[in-house]
Amino acid sequence: MVFNEVLKNLKNYEAGKPIELVVREYGIKDVIKLASNENPFGTSPLVKNALKNASNKAHLYPDDSYFELKEALSAKFSVTPKNLIIGSGSDQIIEFIAHVVLNEKNAILTAGITFAMYEIYASHLGAKTIKTPSQTHDLNQMLEIYKQNKDKIAAIFLCLPNNPLGECLDVSDVYAFMREISPDTLIVIDGAYNDFAKFKDAKKAIDPSDLIKNFKNAIFLGTFSKSYGLGGMRVGYGIADEFIINELAKLRAPFNITTLSLKSAIVALGDDDFVKKTFENNFEQMGVYERFCDEIGVSFIPSFTNFITIKFANSTQICDKLLKQGVILRNLASYGLDAVRITIGTPEQNEIVLNKLREILK
Amino acid sequence: MVFNEVLKNLKNYEAGKPIELVVREYGIKDVIKLASNENPFGTSPLVKNALKNASNKAHLYPDDSYFELKEALSAKFSVTPKNLIIGSGSDQIIEFIAHVVLNEKNAILTAGITFAMYEIYASHLGAKTIKTPSQTHDLNQMLEIYKQNKDKIAAIFLCLPNNPLGECLDVSDVYAFMREISPDTLIVIDGAYNDFAKFKDAKKAIDPSDLIKNFKNAIFLGTFSKSYGLGGMRVGYGIADEFIINELAKLRAPFNITTLSLKSAIVALGDDDFVKKTFENNFEQMGVYERFCDEIGVSFIPSFTNFITIKFANSTQICDKLLKQGVILRNLASYGLDAVRITIGTPEQNEIVLNKLREILK
Repeated sequence: MVFNEVLKNLKNYEAGKPIELVVREYGIKDVIKLASNENPFGTSPLVKNALKNASNKAHLYPDDSYFELKEALSAKFSVTPKNLIIGSGSDQIIEFIAHVVLNEKNAILTAGITFAMYEIYASHLGAKTIKTPSQTHDLNQMLEIYKQNKDKIAAIFLCLPNNPLGECLDVSDVYAFMREISPDTLIVIDGAYNDFAKFKDAKKAIDPSDLIKNFKNAIFLGTFSKSYGLGGMRVGYGIADEFIINELAKLRAPFNITTLSLKSAIVALGDDDFVKKTFENNFEQMGVYERFCDEIGVSFIPSFTNFITIKFANSTQICDKLLKQGVILRNLASYGLDAVRITIGTPEQNEIVLNKLREILK
Repeated sequence: MVFNEVLKNLKNYEAGKPIELVVREYGIKDVIKLASNENPFGTSPLVKNALKNASNKAHLYPDDSYFELKEALSAKFSVTPKNLIIGSGSDQIIEFIAHVVLNEKNAILTAGITFAMYEIYASHLGAKTIKTPSQTHDLNQMLEIYKQNKDKIAAIFLCLPNNPLGECLDVSDVYAFMREISPDTLIVIDGAYNDFAKFKDAKKAIDPSDLIKNFKNAIFLGTFSKSYGLGGMRVGYGIADEFIINELAKLRAPFNITTLSLKSAIVALGDDDFVKKTFENNFEQMGVYERFCDEIGVSFIPSFTNFITIKFANSTQICDKLLKQGVILRNLASYGLDAVRITIGTPEQNEIVLNKLREILK
């Protein structure tokens, strides 16, 4: 069989270890997983109820127009349903973007360390990934590289705030940067964690409606996986000018999200209290981790997300030891970084994790 | 923005009309949908229970190794987990296949009328679709076309039984055909409805384990959407030799099915009674439709699936009239066929639909 050449050296994404694996391998029952930036409060009680009620609809394909969800998202973001595309997580929108603008002759531009899926999807098309020398987003470096490779760079990915590091650019700086970019270059604003950043600091808040009014070449990505607590349901969305959405929509297969995912996303959008509680706990508890770092003299990246990246010199050993004690954190060695990314948990979870860390670091 | 040339003339799949749309547009509450081959009994009571219990896991990403599901499928089909890939419906496996072997220079070979997604995914890669003059599967025609276009045809799709027509080839004929095909050509056996065919006639049953032992260039596709009643949960699988699975796996994004989908598929596999009841009702009620056709003098295609394709001369008018009465059937006009595909429903649903049809055809 002749497989397409371009796939030969493909890398796969290394997902956070699931609880099931730790249960299987170490026989531990009370596992704490703070590895995948899932919502520590689970999902909204309203959503849980809706899922229970929808359990007798599992045999029915979803309304593939996603009418109700698009109406709700349109209202929330002051855009029209025609500015929206729904994906199986915002990941899938990244995949559509790659297929629409990338090929073996062009490239994407990203920060030095950022969400791994940009490069992975680019590689599916044989496109190169050009990264800044800076690990975090550095717009001056980006602009310089862009000017030198203007003909080659088809898309720029800005992760605001940045996963897995946690830093976030100011919107005013992002807009100033974007004005320097050709309207022929697609600019992807990955806002998976932007609502966390917005809660902490209004200067970081991307308004998708304003964004796409000002920049016809921009697309905003959002997700239900983080603040809305629906990581397991795989629902994300893209917001952009209609001419971009129409092109992406050509690649969307029918029924790309499940009937229960659709229902849960619609209901989740209506539970503001749950999301607010999530933000409040997140940044209160972030402080607990920051004080811990100061206390033990280890540096961290000030974070605008629901995780904190701590620069432990021996991240692999620390993660391995904790794993055997039933605590799953995210070792960033696969990103070429001696650091551990910890999802901010509930107060109870964080206390257990920090006590175990203190024990290990003694 | 420069979009990839190959996407310019892409077609989109026309999904069956959802119940929600009929409710919205016609204000009808008691809608009967026999348009998308969903299980009329819903899903197994065991699955419903499992979904309710899993509603508090919606925030957690699934175990991306799909360990438990692969173990269960391996046991069922006497293959190893390495022979398996899980997709968001078997659709997604077709998508992976397209990306792995197709490009602008090659083509796929299919029956004249068959599942529309083969051609749609092929078109995403710029590959051509060569169809037999015969609407149903005709292996002699296929072989002739294959021999004339051997260098061009990278994959052959056999839909067994065939959606949306319902006919099914005998396994012995399929194997004889496959022996004539170069080992460099991928042969896709889409078995989405094969368990229905197997129940009706053992000669139609594809044994995936036997298939992949005999043909290293074959892949079997199965789904949880039909007999298992999980259309809305989007779970399908591919079974093939490891070297094919490894290549497809490069394209599988992490978490391509939801946490609740994973759980429901695992539980569904354990409820044989539900599936048996589904098959029994299906073919008993199929008889009711066949007798109706004989009674009114309209021809149908003898079906090995959970639907029956009836050759009404005025299919569009019939479907439109029924739609306004709250009955959704699948008009095959988009397939270039004056015919209506009706999913076999419960006895109660079928009675209502047939009475309405009698009324309309008077």
